[in-house]
Amino acid sequence: MGDSFWLWYPGDMELYYAMKQNFSRVERGMGWPAFWKSESFRNRVVFMRHYELAQAATFTVYSKAVGFVYADERKFPFGTPIRLEKGPHNIRIHCGRIDAFPSVYIEGDAVRSDKGWLVSDYDRPEVPAGMNEAFRDKNADPDTWHFSEKIYEPVSVTTEKEGFLYDFGVELTAVVEAEDTLPGTVIYCGESREEALDSVNCYQRYEADGQGRTERCAVRFVFISGERRTVRAIHQYVDIPVRASFSVEDARLTRIWEVSARTLALCSGIFFIDGIKRDRWIWGGDAYQSLQVNPYLFADPDIDRRTLTALRGSDPVTTHINTIADYSMLWLASVWDHYRLYGDREYLALMYPKMKTLMAFLLDQRDARGFFIGRPGDWLYIDWADFDREGPLGAEQMAFAGCWMAMSRAADALGLTGDHSFYENGRQEFRQAVRDAYWDEEKGAFVDSFASGRRRVGRQTNIFALRFGVASEEERGSILRNVILNSDVPPITTPYFAFYELDELGKAGRVKELYERMTAYWGGMLDRGAATFWEEYDPEAPAESQYDMYGDRFGKSLCHAWAASPLYLIGRYLVGLELTWSEETGAGFICRPDLAYMDGLKAEFPVACGRKTLKISFAEGILTVSTDAEDGKVVLGEDEYTLCPGRTYSFSLR
Amino acid sequence: MGDSFWLWYPGDMELYYAMKQNFSRVERGMGWPAFWKSESFRNRVVFMRHYELAQAATFTVYSKAVGFVYADERKFPFGTPIRLEKGPHNIRIHCGRIDAFPSVYIEGDAVRSDKGWLVSDYDRPEVPAGMNEAFRDKNADPDTWHFSEKIYEPVSVTTEKEGFLYDFGVELTAVVEAEDTLPGTVIYCGESREEALDSVNCYQRYEADGQGRTERCAVRFVFISGERRTVRAIHQYVDIPVRASFSVEDARLTRIWEVSARTLALCSGIFFIDGIKRDRWIWGGDAYQSLQVNPYLFADPDIDRRTLTALRGSDPVTTHINTIADYSMLWLASVWDHYRLYGDREYLALMYPKMKTLMAFLLDQRDARGFFIGRPGDWLYIDWADFDREGPLGAEQMAFAGCWMAMSRAADALGLTGDHSFYENGRQEFRQAVRDAYWDEEKGAFVDSFASGRRRVGRQTNIFALRFGVASEEERGSILRNVILNSDVPPITTPYFAFYELDELGKAGRVKELYERMTAYWGGMLDRGAATFWEEYDPEAPAESQYDMYGDRFGKSLCHAWAASPLYLIGRYLVGLELTWSEETGAGFICRPDLAYMDGLKAEFPVACGRKTLKISFAEGILTVSTDAEDGKVVLGEDEYTLCPGRTYSFSLR
Repeated sequence: MGDSFWLWYPGDMELYYAMKQNFSRVERGMGWPAFWKSESFRNRVVFMRHYELAQAATFTVYSKAVGFVYADERKFPFGTPIRLEKGPHNIRIHCGRIDAFPSVYIEGDAVRSDKGWLVSDYDRPEVPAGMNEAFRDKNADPDTWHFSEKIYEPVSVTTEKEGFLYDFGVELTAVVEAEDTLPGTVIYCGESREEALDSVNCYQRYEADGQGRTERCAVRFVFISGERRTVRAIHQYVDIPVRASFSVEDARLTRIWEVSARTLALCSGIFFIDGIKRDRWIWGGDAYQSLQVNPYLFADPDIDRRTLTALRGSDPVTTHINTIADYSMLWLASVWDHYRLYGDREYLALMYPKMKTLMAFLLDQRDARGFFIGRPGDWLYIDWADFDREGPLGAEQMAFAGCWMAMSRAADALGLTGDHSFYENGRQEFRQAVRDAYWDEEKGAFVDSFASGRRRVGRQTNIFALRFGVASEEERGSILRNVILNSDVPPITTPYFAFYELDELGKAGRVKELYERMTAYWGGMLDRGAATFWEEYDPEAPAESQYDMYGDRFGKSLCHAWAASPLYLIGRYLVGLELTWSEETGAGFICRPDLAYMDGLKAEFPVACGRKTLKISFAEGILTVSTDAEDGKVVLGEDEYTLCPGRTYSFSLR
Repeated sequence: MGDSFWLWYPGDMELYYAMKQNFSRVERGMGWPAFWKSESFRNRVVFMRHYELAQAATFTVYSKAVGFVYADERKFPFGTPIRLEKGPHNIRIHCGRIDAFPSVYIEGDAVRSDKGWLVSDYDRPEVPAGMNEAFRDKNADPDTWHFSEKIYEPVSVTTEKEGFLYDFGVELTAVVEAEDTLPGTVIYCGESREEALDSVNCYQRYEADGQGRTERCAVRFVFISGERRTVRAIHQYVDIPVRASFSVEDARLTRIWEVSARTLALCSGIFFIDGIKRDRWIWGGDAYQSLQVNPYLFADPDIDRRTLTALRGSDPVTTHINTIADYSMLWLASVWDHYRLYGDREYLALMYPKMKTLMAFLLDQRDARGFFIGRPGDWLYIDWADFDREGPLGAEQMAFAGCWMAMSRAADALGLTGDHSFYENGRQEFRQAVRDAYWDEEKGAFVDSFASGRRRVGRQTNIFALRFGVASEEERGSILRNVILNSDVPPITTPYFAFYELDELGKAGRVKELYERMTAYWGGMLDRGAATFWEEYDPEAPAESQYDMYGDRFGKSLCHAWAASPLYLIGRYLVGLELTWSEETGAGFICRPDLAYMDGLKAEFPVACGRKTLKISFAEGILTVSTDAEDGKVVLGEDEYTLCPGRTYSFSLR
């Protein structure tokens, strides 16, 4: 039998699991489904394919859907072998299902469910069927995701209050199981010790089921009153291989990398989510960052695709992604970046029509000057920060410039010359209009609002102006001085925007500032015992309220994807690994290590879209580099070395 | 506790059950989901309401959805009592569900799930929540429809072949249960004796489950090989009360009415479907006819609403109803007729926005002259018959004229003067354009095509020209002579279009021809042993192939809703009961019995939108009439009598 996949209407699998994901948040026994439009899978589809059989062939279709196989002019039920003679054949597989997306698996040699099937939903023209490596088992309908499991035992058990506190040492997404526990016994699961011990405010508490188990939750500490029990955590996760490692003599830096890796891995399941306790939702901005960090840990393109497909949903577009206009914008940038990072032309081509319709939805929100303005119900988020929101919001225009850029580049990459010139001309015109309206020559920076006259200068607007290609080279220097390195401008307070800011510091070659800010901020969390990085961290917060957020005693997520950006910052600016891509030469890399921070370095990073590895170490003044990839370079000062695959290079830098 | 209903997003319940219905067709073990776009319910909704409580109140929310209650600024889980103090309160109930539509039931005195709740799907502005009398039990989630059940025993058991044939005497939608039957034993279920006995071609055969049962199917005859068993049929149905009765001395006419009543009742479940064996689907054209017949049997407005809501689905419109353009058109006519028949302003107002968007979808398909033309994928059905399909199809224009009329009248009824003048002007212009293009003065009839020059005259085009107000009074007479009463014009062959034709005969006062055609056609089926009326009947067909259709030995549906029109034809033209409605006076009726066919009449009919009854009998020259309704009249020849509610009138007509 040949290799077969489960097939479905493209996007249905992602929409189904996105609903499961976005409905999975639990707060003190209450479900909290995400508060935006939830798009469903299709219920009635037909798979179709034409075969020219060189010899007779037999195949069997498996499906939980209601339906039948229509081979040429004959009908067959699912589950029974169908024999076709040599020659031309048309096969259509009719499926209807309500509780989950309809899918089929076709077992056979010549006729099987591999690439080449089309599918229609009776609404739009047929498209290539969806499939995924995760669903290749004939006996496992894709309505259930089979998580990998690993059993954890507590690393310490201490007596507390009227019972025992079990510490697993690391945070997990786990079902907790307590032996010899009567059903109904309350099991308190905490991200922090304080949370597990706080029977009133603990976010995740469960009454044990018949097996003494909880639901799957975010847990490091468990408290159960009464006698000491055998407690274990059944960690359930999506096994995305980690392809990077990093250590240096600087233990704090090493630990920041490790804790970041743990944080991102926990928040990378079927999708990139924000946090494992809260919200457990798929957010476009958070996903955009995880997608940037992914190449420096997993280099896994499939989680990108699953996440981007789930976020975007189906046409027509009627609301912004997560209700946030800038998250729609970042989605466009994400699709482009995914292509840039993995050379994934097939996915770019698949998504391009949806990029266009989302861009058209954004273009409909322009004012007479071309500036993006919000509609009722739109959230112009940008960051948890103050802005001067009078008139079109400056930071939003910067993100919108990123849309023009993503569209222009995507159209160009796909060879769509008409589209390319439309978006490229639009990009240039828009960029000029934004610079004319928002650049303040006297301040040497972009302002939040041209309409108010208040000329407020904030970091977010300027950082996005740098990020999305609005600022000129000259303005870049000015922004660095007047905004980013200017302590009079109110600081960034979220790890979310800290990523963007530190990325600009890195791009500007300010690695020292980057290192200092990073180690201060993330190191501060380590000092407070963080085993994963937090949604937000205020160095001034007293210990007794350090887990507070949104007015909730344990409202803060202690394992939050957007806090994992040191993986990127360390890899990209300290190790100096820049992943490159061009249409002509494909994937490559340039490594420019900043040896000031690299004493004792032992590291590996995925390169060549995750298919190859760069090994790098630095000890006693010797830098050792090797890779199995083509098109790798090491740059040391003024010198550039092209790496031959398979050879090991040593550079004495004493 | 006050009266509560389950609440959902309006339309979701109908879309969910419509999928179940349209996926329920089974042919020889194979599911055959309907071949058109299937629209799903919403998965994430929020119910909301503001209360001003005169005193403290307690309520409890029940739901199978994931979610919580947000009362003022506090969160509560489902299933626990929530107490609110006297004063103003905002309540929001958050729900997410994947396998079925999210719904809630709120138990309480002041706060409960009655009229007044709004609901949002995070896409469009909030709307009043949906509810239905069928779902009022707190313990019965609306994800399951609880059918009424009645046990039937066979009326005869005969030995046949190697086993026994069990005849229930009437057709049923039943689970068949055979006692002492091993699992896997094959149970053959037939609409006809021949089908049950044909082990190869029988449409519905089941392997008995552990209780010796089949699935719910369309069954009158059951064959099981082996010994004689105790067999019963558990008839499962939606209990829509029959409010009409009819009998006359003319046994054939009485039997036609009875068999029609049985036929329509079986095809009227959660929705009006076409047939109970096949297709078990909700078709717009079939529903349009059932909706016309409904007032003469059930006068049940709720099945109209459920069916029309299910057919129309959600916005945006992207395909025609059942893929058939004329079924989209008949849907518009149906919504208007439903209002006209029941004065159901609330439903008209609820549907009017969807009427407008569907009309806009149709208007987009006009050519330069305003004629409706099909797009790829559109089916212009009209009838199973030959047409001259060159250029815009005449019959389709006639149906389109009906859309203009429905829109104009609906806008007028809702007091939307701008819309009304738009649609009314459009209707008049369109009608003139159609008459200019399709009327053939020499033929004295409308032609199928003005483009071909072939001047083909067919019944369908002319019948729809009469039905949808295109023909002038003068043209009416001409069409009657030159088409309907002209045996040179190819006859109608489907009961579907026979309804429209006989309706025109009746309107023209040609009751004798109507009676003769009706008794010949439907009486012919009785002569062949019909216990319900068939999808199609050819008086010339030999008995051995009388159940053939679509090249299938038992492909013909023997219980088909569109064959139940004698209920309407007898009620409307023989009994002469015309149901009237006006904005000013509401519902009324005029009864003009044609006594030529009424000897021995004993009948009751629902009037006043089903709320009242007309009793009428005729024996030995005495016509006796009474009603509890206002605004009833009897017309006998030139004399008109207004009926006082509660009084019995006798007219001696010897």
